[in-house]
Amino acid sequence: SSPFPFSLSLTMSAPSPCFQMSEKTLCVSQSLFTNNRTRLCEALRAVEELPATAVVCLQGGKSLLRDDTDHEPMFRQESYFHWAYGVIEPDFFGAIEVKTGKSFLFIPRLPESYAVVMGAIKPCEYFQKRYQVDVVAYTDEIATVLKSINSDALPELLVMNGINTDSGSKTAEVTFENIEWFKVNQSILFKAIVECRVIKTPEEIEVIRYANKISSEAHKEVMRQVRPGLMEYQLESIFKHHTYYHGGARNVSYTCICGSGHNASVLHYGHAGEPNAKQIKDGDVCLFDMGAEYHCYASDITCSFPANGKFSDKQKLIYNMVLKSNRAVLAASKPGVSWPEMHRLADRVHLEELKNAGFLQGDVDEMMANYLGGTFMPHGLGHFLGIDTHDVGGYPEGTQREPHPGLKSLRCGRNLAAGMVVTIEPGIYFINHLLDHALKDPVLSKFLVADKINEFRGFGGIRIEDDVVITETGTDLLTDVPRTVEEIEATMAEEPTMPIVE
Amino acid sequence: SSPFPFSLSLTMSAPSPCFQMSEKTLCVSQSLFTNNRTRLCEALRAVEELPATAVVCLQGGKSLLRDDTDHEPMFRQESYFHWAYGVIEPDFFGAIEVKTGKSFLFIPRLPESYAVVMGAIKPCEYFQKRYQVDVVAYTDEIATVLKSINSDALPELLVMNGINTDSGSKTAEVTFENIEWFKVNQSILFKAIVECRVIKTPEEIEVIRYANKISSEAHKEVMRQVRPGLMEYQLESIFKHHTYYHGGARNVSYTCICGSGHNASVLHYGHAGEPNAKQIKDGDVCLFDMGAEYHCYASDITCSFPANGKFSDKQKLIYNMVLKSNRAVLAASKPGVSWPEMHRLADRVHLEELKNAGFLQGDVDEMMANYLGGTFMPHGLGHFLGIDTHDVGGYPEGTQREPHPGLKSLRCGRNLAAGMVVTIEPGIYFINHLLDHALKDPVLSKFLVADKINEFRGFGGIRIEDDVVITETGTDLLTDVPRTVEEIEATMAEEPTMPIVE
Ligand SMILES: [Mn+2]
Ligand SMILES: [Mn+2]
Repeated sequence: SSPFPFSLSLTMSAPSPCFQMSEKTLCVSQSLFTNNRTRLCEALRAVEELPATAVVCLQGGKSLLRDDTDHEPMFRQESYFHWAYGVIEPDFFGAIEVKTGKSFLFIPRLPESYAVVMGAIKPCEYFQKRYQVDVVAYTDEIATVLKSINSDALPELLVMNGINTDSGSKTAEVTFENIEWFKVNQSILFKAIVECRVIKTPEEIEVIRYANKISSEAHKEVMRQVRPGLMEYQLESIFKHHTYYHGGARNVSYTCICGSGHNASVLHYGHAGEPNAKQIKDGDVCLFDMGAEYHCYASDITCSFPANGKFSDKQKLIYNMVLKSNRAVLAASKPGVSWPEMHRLADRVHLEELKNAGFLQGDVDEMMANYLGGTFMPHGLGHFLGIDTHDVGGYPEGTQREPHPGLKSLRCGRNLAAGMVVTIEPGIYFINHLLDHALKDPVLSKFLVADKINEFRGFGGIRIEDDVVITETGTDLLTDVPRTVEEIEATMAEEPTMPIVE
Repeated sequence: SSPFPFSLSLTMSAPSPCFQMSEKTLCVSQSLFTNNRTRLCEALRAVEELPATAVVCLQGGKSLLRDDTDHEPMFRQESYFHWAYGVIEPDFFGAIEVKTGKSFLFIPRLPESYAVVMGAIKPCEYFQKRYQVDVVAYTDEIATVLKSINSDALPELLVMNGINTDSGSKTAEVTFENIEWFKVNQSILFKAIVECRVIKTPEEIEVIRYANKISSEAHKEVMRQVRPGLMEYQLESIFKHHTYYHGGARNVSYTCICGSGHNASVLHYGHAGEPNAKQIKDGDVCLFDMGAEYHCYASDITCSFPANGKFSDKQKLIYNMVLKSNRAVLAASKPGVSWPEMHRLADRVHLEELKNAGFLQGDVDEMMANYLGGTFMPHGLGHFLGIDTHDVGGYPEGTQREPHPGLKSLRCGRNLAAGMVVTIEPGIYFINHLLDHALKDPVLSKFLVADKINEFRGFGGIRIEDDVVITETGTDLLTDVPRTVEEIEATMAEEPTMPIVE
């Protein structure tokens, strides 16, 4: 009688083929993942060197313990495996026969004691219905099952083998008992699956849109609640509570960044060593970069605003420069446009505006040629967004990362295409050691008006980050938060609305 | 001018030697950790085979990435390293000269780019003051610094080498450049540091007491807010928000268990595969096992109550049985008492009460001899609590785990001693497959009144979990939540108080 898949442990024979945390949260149909597997097979069939008996073989994320203890950190599915199956449990394997699209899941054989500690042991039929695959067997049967797919010939296994261009880390190697029975092909799968992940389907976009919706609502509530005297982490707490309680998002996409005052100039502030533990002061700027994840699809949103609810002249000045670059990139983004060019567009807007406001002097083209933009925006303009916050595929083979300030941190070097989801997140920061470096640099220093710049030391920074889908003609903005100075001040003046009791 | 250590990045020369998230949260002095190191040196000096040049060498937790991505899960310090240093940053090493107690920290040499992304790079002097050690150097200098401790002889390094008795996992091996210069001793340190961790100091107890305080407050708020119609995870969200927003606890000690109805019989419900996503129904029992962690010291509290705020007769009946065993163990616990005997005491109370209520028949001594208690309480009575939720030292060399139902899951086989912190968490559950097993068992079945037991299938379970310090004469109860039926009903009738805006 309950509409939710997780409450079906008592009626395990008929699980809903969807993920949903409650009636009020998004229902993610398993067809999203079935469709992803179909897309992958189509892409692989177009690969000239595809073996005739190709079978994709993927290993899901493993349950892990912290150090030598029995503490179990919350399991979060490995991203490629999630993309292909949408499985929420650890220790699965999957396979897909490329020719037919026939799909397999392999589940761990659990001991009887599991039922007492972790919950009823679900049979293969449960997972077959829940995850809409053709075959479910146990992980100790992988080799036997794969061997029997085709009576004529052993399958050739396509396995992951590639480097994540954001981390530099290699994908994990698939291992299971008797894998040595099979020929293993490491050269085809990675590239194909990465390219599939780069282009999001309408169903995937709906999940990212939902993650954006609940995160946008939470950012607005944070704006209503923030005030001098609170600790930065208290706003992190409100954000997480709002997205979980109201949106069913148990995880955030990345550690919440709640920088106030000077901390707003630390790009990834908020980590364990700098745990959002400053008291927010009157006059501080707040730069809050927070996003919820729903069924492993990310959002990534930054709002910048004055702690006391009213922009100072200084804050308004810098804020409007960044809003201008954000809107310029939003307007210019469409299929065919180079993302590094968009980064350069944001740089140009910043340099022009900084010159107009008296921070810089001289010729903007010359500033651009010397990458002065990287002094104020030392990070990339934005990145792919999907199952990973920094989603895969930013630099496919043959695409080079430009080695210049700012651009060298850009996580995507491609031309935009319809179905990509990117963040647009320009920022201007006053970072002492970058300013000192530029003021000492024989080329850069001549552009700088030192007195004006020094007035803004300690200001922190402004970042405005939106998530957008690239459409056939332009962009579809997923983020829905107040963006103009007036809109922000109006939202901040509202009474907090978080209904703590429904 | 700010009293908080984390806001001192601008005045790094004089950090406070303490951990505190805000003025309103507990200040944990660094002396807690200095004292721990002193205790360790004293214990080591009492070891007959201690080398004359012994130097303890510990490796802190490493910063990790998720799978092949650049996603950084929140760093949480490795527990032994935390016990010795209280360091919140990853990638440190530590050393202690046993003879003198002289202490060393080794910090990673960070690239200039760290300052832009992660925050100002703090010099050695900062960490020396913040963590109150004698020497701070870089991790690429470990071998050189250790070599120079003593001009007469190379130190012999005492390193970790042991098995965690809850996980069965081995401690990680210490590795650093040129460690091969030194003789490495693997036989002394583990046992000594585990025994030190078993007995908590007054300063450690104050942190566990604080974690209990903020978690108790949050449990009470959850009781006020729970009602049929809410989803289980919404109460998890309230708990986490309350402990973080009001208590400064960024992490929970373990994944929140929010079981309602039948889910209350799943001991570790709430993990990623069973994510607290059932709607709470009128008539459900709720078993909520949740604890916040503060500066890596745990709390672990379970409250059981009726979803609708009024105990049914059935709920009251089982609840009072468990409360009776909880209180019996609390009253009997003191130095010298065997913890497995306390487990047996709880079993005996349960069996007597179940017999009195008509669930069981026959001789209770005979039931005890056949370990029937494990059918209703298939977990251990409680465990050490400290920097790990299941803290170390439950089974030192020579202490055997008893192989019987219930007892085989007991995480501590020792006699109690002053300064130990344990959980007292008896429970009675109606778990179908354990009941089926007992009903089919030729010995156990004769004790069971099948009709009465079958009436309670689907009931779920009751657990009442408190955290206590063993004192010289008895116990000091750290947990402060309503425990009697009347107290619980009174709390649940209160208006929610969580002030969402201060
Ligand atoms: Mn971003
Ligand atoms: Mn416990």
